[in-house]
Amino acid sequence: MEKSIFYHAGCPVCISAEHDIVNLVGTNNVEIVHLGENRSRIAEAEKAGVKSVPALITPNKSVLHINYGASMADVKG
Amino acid sequence: MEKSIFYHAGCPVCISAEHDIVNLVGTNNVEIVHLGENRSRIAEAEKAGVKSVPALITPNKSVLHINYGASMADVKG
Repeated sequence: MEKSIFYHAGCPVCISAEHDIVNLVGTNNVEIVHLGENRSRIAEAEKAGVKSVPALITPNKSVLHINYGASMADVKG
Repeated sequence: MEKSIFYHAGCPVCISAEHDIVNLVGTNNVEIVHLGENRSRIAEAEKAGVKSVPALITPNKSVLHINYGASMADVKG
């Protein structure tokens, strides 16, 4: 199965959701991307439809915004 | 593993998220509850921390609000 991608920005809501998602889908099935530390991937996340973090892109490219940590505008600073 | 519980209310956002969650965690690992058709479970969902649907309660009782379909006030009508 293609991996999901979990985008976050290190906020408490993000970290909590990351643990939940890893527990649910398995650590091998999800790539974790910290957009604060990996700013070159912000454009990719926005193109995928991410409006806020944390967000999960499923293998079939659905965007699941999970709870609400920060907007992409906040992430971009 | 204890099952997750996915609460929804039949809205398009809910149905889309339901498909995504079932694909991610497996149909045997999640109980789907339609609060519009199963109103006796609204109180249980609120007690678990559900503020809007769709929402997923993980086996360790975290609440993941996924995208946004409707508030619980809307669900209660």
